[in-house]
Amino acid sequence: MLPKRSLMGPGPSDVYPEVLNAMARPTIGHMDPAFIGFMDELNELLRYAFQTNNTVTLPISAPGSAGMECCLVNLLEPGDKVVIASNGVFGGRMLEIARRCGAKPVAIEFEWGTPVDPDKVEDVLKANPDAVALAFVHSETSTGVRSDAEALCKLAHDYDCLAIVDAVTSLGGIELCVDDWGIDAIYSGTQKCLSAPPGLSPVSFNDAAMAKVASRKTPPQSWFLDMNLLTGYWGPGAKRAYHHTAPINSLYALDEALRILKREGLDNGWARHADNYQKLHSGLAAMGLEFYVESEYRLPQLNAVKVPEGVDEAGVRGFLLNQYNLEIGAGLGPLAGKIWRIGLMGASCSEKHVALCLEGLKDALENN
Amino acid sequence: MLPKRSLMGPGPSDVYPEVLNAMARPTIGHMDPAFIGFMDELNELLRYAFQTNNTVTLPISAPGSAGMECCLVNLLEPGDKVVIASNGVFGGRMLEIARRCGAKPVAIEFEWGTPVDPDKVEDVLKANPDAVALAFVHSETSTGVRSDAEALCKLAHDYDCLAIVDAVTSLGGIELCVDDWGIDAIYSGTQKCLSAPPGLSPVSFNDAAMAKVASRKTPPQSWFLDMNLLTGYWGPGAKRAYHHTAPINSLYALDEALRILKREGLDNGWARHADNYQKLHSGLAAMGLEFYVESEYRLPQLNAVKVPEGVDEAGVRGFLLNQYNLEIGAGLGPLAGKIWRIGLMGASCSEKHVALCLEGLKDALENN
Repeated sequence: MLPKRSLMGPGPSDVYPEVLNAMARPTIGHMDPAFIGFMDELNELLRYAFQTNNTVTLPISAPGSAGMECCLVNLLEPGDKVVIASNGVFGGRMLEIARRCGAKPVAIEFEWGTPVDPDKVEDVLKANPDAVALAFVHSETSTGVRSDAEALCKLAHDYDCLAIVDAVTSLGGIELCVDDWGIDAIYSGTQKCLSAPPGLSPVSFNDAAMAKVASRKTPPQSWFLDMNLLTGYWGPGAKRAYHHTAPINSLYALDEALRILKREGLDNGWARHADNYQKLHSGLAAMGLEFYVESEYRLPQLNAVKVPEGVDEAGVRGFLLNQYNLEIGAGLGPLAGKIWRIGLMGASCSEKHVALCLEGLKDALENN
Repeated sequence: MLPKRSLMGPGPSDVYPEVLNAMARPTIGHMDPAFIGFMDELNELLRYAFQTNNTVTLPISAPGSAGMECCLVNLLEPGDKVVIASNGVFGGRMLEIARRCGAKPVAIEFEWGTPVDPDKVEDVLKANPDAVALAFVHSETSTGVRSDAEALCKLAHDYDCLAIVDAVTSLGGIELCVDDWGIDAIYSGTQKCLSAPPGLSPVSFNDAAMAKVASRKTPPQSWFLDMNLLTGYWGPGAKRAYHHTAPINSLYALDEALRILKREGLDNGWARHADNYQKLHSGLAAMGLEFYVESEYRLPQLNAVKVPEGVDEAGVRGFLLNQYNLEIGAGLGPLAGKIWRIGLMGASCSEKHVALCLEGLKDALENN
């Protein structure tokens, strides 16, 4: 049996017991009329979480990276120019997938730990009037940086581009308003601020995105992620044609997590993330620890904390895991060894978690 | 709460209670050292199930159709000629995915309900000496037909082709020997004879398949399914580089299902499927019902039964669902309305299930 951890890394977060119990409900058939009703309710809960009325709002049957691939393979055709703003691992991943779509990505790179700068994006959009889409990461999980999704979506539309947004770490943790901000296509994950187990990627496409899908000259390169086939099963409409076998029990878990989200209310959930971030920040500051990201751009749900000079970065993480059953995350790429990533996501965003983390880190720093 | 069904359709099958309980274990991090050890054990269990020593044996983080796409996108490059033998829905799906890979599929179509004929395949391989692969479905889930995978793999190698095999419905239900039969790449699913919930696709690539991956001129079109990146995380080797977030709890379930499979022993499991098929067959024959597939090619775990003249096919299924909480499957494509598909897979392959199905069908036919 694996140890029980407190998950305060970059995700997965702790899963609510009710969600784990939901996952263990008896499996039902993916074409069962009772399950079809369940799917409709689940999609309605997703619309609430995304703050959207988009008809096409459904969970992809694979983790967040597949949601990213779903958005890009459906919305980019070979030869399409797409502007991709990258300020961390996941912007880089978008670039790589866009290349594999045969698209022509125009990369705008920002220093890791800084947000996407709308002015620079506008310069590039202006210089590339044939671009069909702008893609960026709202909450960069590799650095804990929030970019201004609303401003970037507005820019995209000013230059006749679709706005494709990575909200894997955003959903449920900070303000995110798909319709009000004019996001055309968005994907997220279940294992961050929703606190369901990893494995699914909620996505939403608006009418403009679906019009692009409908106007494609060639089918998307992925059959598994083809939005026309996915909507044939998930709806809208009564057709419900078999595509692939839906991951039933993982969908039970997502459904339960979304019910918890809705019971709390998005505003309250966002406030809880902000509050616990303040508590964590005060505690870390009192210990002399510094944050890597400027306060204005920090994600409350994912905190990049500088490893103090002379401290064994991996040693501290190992100590926390072994002595406290507490997971915090390492830095990635250029930030490996330089930062820890401390998550306060969903069920892992509580006063108890903050206290455990502060206690463990204090102990670790005194004993490593 | 959704109703509890007995699942005797084409999958998902009933999930063992121990497997459902395993799925509800506390989520752990995908980079946790304890989880890495779990992954190694899981892959070893998969090797047993597949009867292979292939180093590259791992579960894809998405359902069986993604396993199909994984095999094809990694093993086919644009312009590659691939011979695809199709005798049902899933052979047709292979064709569609191969086309989206930019490969040149050569289709050999067989009548639904009949197996792939090795002689015809040999004719096509002979006529296409530049083909790089032969792909076929071992157990066609749409019709309940078993093809001779061993003979087809031998043919593939005689003509210098890789053998790519769909074993979604085979694994655990009938004899399947990846190494002895010379299967180069194989994919399966969790929700058939393994009786775990749907959502993952075990795959295995041998050295010849991995050599083809290594010799590619272009990266696979799917980043999510790129075998080089997947093996970076799953091993072999100690690197364990983050690729995507593994679906932890679904992997717990698969692990538990494989432990149950190993405790029973493959031979015993195959015999159990054969025995219960005999019981189902006797009972249906006594009711005057006929099988669609010739006995030599029938899958014990999935039985295509002819809908008698004048009987309301969908009415019977609805009756069973509502009166018996029993799911059986409908026909697909040209067989819609003409057959029922009755599954005896994994946990749904028991005397109790056979008795329930016979009782329910008798009642349904007398009352519809």
